[in-house]
Amino acid sequence: MVAAADTQLDVVKLDYGPESIEFSLDEYYAAPEILSRVGEAEKNGYDAVVVSCFGDPALHAARECVRIPMVGLMESSMMLASMLGDKFSIVTAPKETVPSMKRMTKMVAVENKLASIRAISVPVLRLHENEKATKRAFIEEAKSAIEEDGADVVIPGCGGFSAWASELAEELGVPVVDPGGAALKIAEALVKLRLTHSRLSYPSPSTKKRTLPSLG
Amino acid sequence: MVAAADTQLDVVKLDYGPESIEFSLDEYYAAPEILSRVGEAEKNGYDAVVVSCFGDPALHAARECVRIPMVGLMESSMMLASMLGDKFSIVTAPKETVPSMKRMTKMVAVENKLASIRAISVPVLRLHENEKATKRAFIEEAKSAIEEDGADVVIPGCGGFSAWASELAEELGVPVVDPGGAALKIAEALVKLRLTHSRLSYPSPSTKKRTLPSLG
Amino acid sequence: MVAAADTQLDVVKLDYGPESIEFSLDEYYAAPEILSRVGEAEKNGYDAVVVSCFGDPALHAARECVRIPMVGLMESSMMLASMLGDKFSIVTAPKETVPSMKRMTKMVAVENKLASIRAISVPVLRLHENEKATKRAFIEEAKSAIEEDGADVVIPGCGGFSAWASELAEELGVPVVDPGGAALKIAEALVKLRLTHSRLSYPSPSTKKRTLPSLG
Amino acid sequence: MVAAADTQLDVVKLDYGPESIEFSLDEYYAAPEILSRVGEAEKNGYDAVVVSCFGDPALHAARECVRIPMVGLMESSMMLASMLGDKFSIVTAPKETVPSMKRMTKMVAVENKLASIRAISVPVLRLHENEKATKRAFIEEAKSAIEEDGADVVIPGCGGFSAWASELAEELGVPVVDPGGAALKIAEALVKLRLTHSRLSYPSPSTKKRTLPSLG
Amino acid sequence: MVAAADTQLDVVKLDYGPESIEFSLDEYYAAPEILSRVGEAEKNGYDAVVVSCFGDPALHAARECVRIPMVGLMESSMMLASMLGDKFSIVTAPKETVPSMKRMTKMVAVENKLASIRAISVPVLRLHENEKATKRAFIEEAKSAIEEDGADVVIPGCGGFSAWASELAEELGVPVVDPGGAALKIAEALVKLRLTHSRLSYPSPSTKKRTLPSLG
Amino acid sequence: MVAAADTQLDVVKLDYGPESIEFSLDEYYAAPEILSRVGEAEKNGYDAVVVSCFGDPALHAARECVRIPMVGLMESSMMLASMLGDKFSIVTAPKETVPSMKRMTKMVAVENKLASIRAISVPVLRLHENEKATKRAFIEEAKSAIEEDGADVVIPGCGGFSAWASELAEELGVPVVDPGGAALKIAEALVKLRLTHSRLSYPSPSTKKRTLPSLG
Repeated sequence: MVAAADTQLDVVKLDYGPESIEFSLDEYYAAPEILSRVGEAEKNGYDAVVVSCFGDPALHAARECVRIPMVGLMESSMMLASMLGDKFSIVTAPKETVPSMKRMTKMVAVENKLASIRAISVPVLRLHENEKATKRAFIEEAKSAIEEDGADVVIPGCGGFSAWASELAEELGVPVVDPGGAALKIAEALVKLRLTHSRLSYPSPSTKKRTLPSLG
Repeated sequence: MVAAADTQLDVVKLDYGPESIEFSLDEYYAAPEILSRVGEAEKNGYDAVVVSCFGDPALHAARECVRIPMVGLMESSMMLASMLGDKFSIVTAPKETVPSMKRMTKMVAVENKLASIRAISVPVLRLHENEKATKRAFIEEAKSAIEEDGADVVIPGCGGFSAWASELAEELGVPVVDPGGAALKIAEALVKLRLTHSRLSYPSPSTKKRTLPSLG
Repeated sequence: MVAAADTQLDVVKLDYGPESIEFSLDEYYAAPEILSRVGEAEKNGYDAVVVSCFGDPALHAARECVRIPMVGLMESSMMLASMLGDKFSIVTAPKETVPSMKRMTKMVAVENKLASIRAISVPVLRLHENEKATKRAFIEEAKSAIEEDGADVVIPGCGGFSAWASELAEELGVPVVDPGGAALKIAEALVKLRLTHSRLSYPSPSTKKRTLPSLG
Repeated sequence: MVAAADTQLDVVKLDYGPESIEFSLDEYYAAPEILSRVGEAEKNGYDAVVVSCFGDPALHAARECVRIPMVGLMESSMMLASMLGDKFSIVTAPKETVPSMKRMTKMVAVENKLASIRAISVPVLRLHENEKATKRAFIEEAKSAIEEDGADVVIPGCGGFSAWASELAEELGVPVVDPGGAALKIAEALVKLRLTHSRLSYPSPSTKKRTLPSLG
Repeated sequence: MVAAADTQLDVVKLDYGPESIEFSLDEYYAAPEILSRVGEAEKNGYDAVVVSCFGDPALHAARECVRIPMVGLMESSMMLASMLGDKFSIVTAPKETVPSMKRMTKMVAVENKLASIRAISVPVLRLHENEKATKRAFIEEAKSAIEEDGADVVIPGCGGFSAWASELAEELGVPVVDPGGAALKIAEALVKLRLTHSRLSYPSPSTKKRTLPSLG
Repeated sequence: MVAAADTQLDVVKLDYGPESIEFSLDEYYAAPEILSRVGEAEKNGYDAVVVSCFGDPALHAARECVRIPMVGLMESSMMLASMLGDKFSIVTAPKETVPSMKRMTKMVAVENKLASIRAISVPVLRLHENEKATKRAFIEEAKSAIEEDGADVVIPGCGGFSAWASELAEELGVPVVDPGGAALKIAEALVKLRLTHSRLSYPSPSTKKRTLPSLG
């Protein structure tokens, strides 16, 4: 069990948003519901929030809105990975998500340790249809990341792969960082250490009129 | 007149969104309406779109959605500024917008030329109440950017200042790049050169269900 | 037609200099005549000057000497390319010019976006002898730049290729930025925006004795 | 209590080494004993080791020698700090330790987020003689780091300050990351996630003769 | 005596060129004569050439033209300085030369160690009129470089200061690297080690027509 | 002969330490004896010390301890290499030493010019058993560094290869920098120029109790 004994973990599914996050576009559909739920979480007394999507959608905006720690999967797993080796690669799916993911990683401080982002050719929504083939494809790409791109550590950049982290690590012979687990542990760490993001980097948004069209 | 003789420029005001863009949060309220209007513009035969807000909201997502050039004020003015001197500074308002603007500039290729982002202490929505005082405050900060931070060029990082660019340049003795003008000329350049963003960096989003909550 | 309707474009051929610019050495033979012609252009009332050679010879020295915008092909095309994708490559000729070109690109702010400089094996002066073969060779190298080096955009780094930019773009499926067109549009933009390089970065050279040997 | 309920924490004092670590020299006196104790810890079934000294002495060598996670205070606290704001500063003592600390931070992936290293003028071994004056001096330097160097987060770079982290944070209005707490939580995280450093970055040293002079 | 016992050092004064090198412009007047003399030196059997001007004019072009080591004052002194401390500053004259010098330092690999370029307000050609005042002004700026910019080492960026290097070092308490001496020793080192620049970086220019106007 | 006529060169073999330096671990076994001998050298009137091991063990600590120049093979050879071409590669042995060498090169200012570190598959202690095969293996890797990684210059990262530098250069057609020779010439240069490391970067360690375990 990854969570600490005294951690109560509640998982909330969003009512609105994109079916999956693969493009820069998708972040904008995910953000409004995320921001609204994050605000509720703070009001309801939660100690921290993990946005459980690898692209860290709305992470910085959420930090402006609440004072409890907001933890992202991409940022957390990249931080841990950078402590386990010199370079790490992200293996994701599908191929079309790589360019937007490259843009997102530029916001993370350890981007200089990123050896490559590689993709297997399976759409996010179909990753679980043939688990065995998906795993095999993941291992192929991860091996190329290690041998050709110089990665010492691998991050599965997609929720679908997380559960297999240990299994994949064993087969690859390098650490495989489960982003969900990484984010949970970083969230626990911040709570126990009574730390949260700086008001200097994340000032509270002023109150003013903000409206959204009904695009649903 | 900044626009070329054969440029037809139509200005569209958004029906939804935040009153102004000062925080990371505001981008998420601006994006859905921007994305929807950008799509319409392409359908209606426009050759290019300038998102007329200094923070370049939804710029990369919009590039995924349409094939006509999408031009941002921040990116365009930073590019031109980097060709006019070794370092440039952005002077904006209010102070609270500086941290989110710093995050945004990390997405622009010439961020290494950014000497500083400075702010005058006036909220965006009140910039025009006392024009003279606002100009004076702008000039003070721009001078500090030049003398203390090493800026050779200044960019007014806020729509409110754009109209005064020439006047400010004369007083400061350095180029002052009007972001709106810069974006318009870059848009014209791309259209005439028959250039638009690469499909490799901006693949078309796949069709899938994407919904938004009614937060209006 | 790339130029704006109200742009009057005069092309001047240099009386002195190297037959082509392929080496660091060649810049020093090109510079004196360029600097002298640039000074004349300003005196004769021209609004801006484009030095029509991809290596941007004498660009910074020329900016010291005149107050009208001095625009370079390499700098302009690299700026536009950096707004169209994450990485761009330059494809040039001949191979011997690559090392000096690498040194030149270090002076351009978006050098961090440069995926690679590749060369086809044809000397500059023979590029037009067999156009078809030259085009074919260009496309081969550009494809390698895209597939192996990660380029999303291609810049033909040699005057000989510019005229084919659209044709090449179509075949490659990525934007191909014509450096000559890029520089012309940037020059027009700066003129219309009443912008020129900063005196802080380009102070006027003091008057003193400067002589050249007669090497002609 | 910072440690998780199921974490058993044993603190071991070294029998040999320097009285404190302030210079590059001191690391070499600390390392042999650290490396020997780390090896014992692994043999005795410990799950992870934190080297409780801010300069992360012998961290990378220790990772070569054992397969359990080796966690350093400097690296861990810099990682957490980089997730809480855009820039952080380290405040340490005495002034003479700053140059060697600068060299050490170059080994940490988030060094690009380091705004400054500042020192109060008190030797490490006297920090606790006058606690109140020490705290006051720390707060002065931390305030300068925030106002002059742009720090959003502060790290006390010296064991002596760690216990006061919350108190200091309250007074400064920015997060203050206790390096010892940070390292403990990162160690727990790695253990729970079954992660340790990559064998590709930290291959096992071959067996060969290695001797030390008796300098005691 | 700085030169080795078996080094024969001949100093050649140029017949053409600018009176001093202070601007980007000046390099283009200095280059043709330098290149011609460098070629002669190789023909006459010299083992290496030092271009005795701090801005390293025509350094890379000269390397293309000859196979004996070409050594520059700026590059050599920056290399040695970077081995003596973490950061170094250049102190030069006059102020107008700073922007062009900044551009030149970008070509040197250790530019990341450059804390600042500072100038005293004396034109190059008048530096020796009042030696005492010039030294005083140099020391003032060097002290500011150390205290405000974080320099640990100082380089006098101007021939006029070189002779005073030891004297200045004593007064400042930090190493002061004489660029002329540094270049001489690097030249000797390369000759003794039978090293010269790589043909891959500096291919021989092809023979073709290169002419210069008579601007003398 | 590489040394200057008036250079007296004494070679000292260490009584303690590892048999060879291949891992981060080995540095800690080498350091105490190095530091003790360096101190003796200064007391005995030596003008400078070269630590004749490619990994520059204890270099920075030694600079704290003595005021005579301390010169490292890795740092010196990387500096010279960076003046001979745009990129250089290090070829070393065995493969296991590459990760620790990568960490060490991060401390050198010209690390941005490092194209790659490659290894031949021979342990350091066996390099001389079959010289011909070792040379052949070196040349293979050096050629790959040139053709695949873009190196213009090669550094043999291992004492065993140094003697062959000229021979290898001839076969490869690029400069091969002998690290031992490079360090010797840099040491001579610093002595003649009366330069040594800055006290600001290398303050003298305070006197305090420092002990080592008897691990011999």
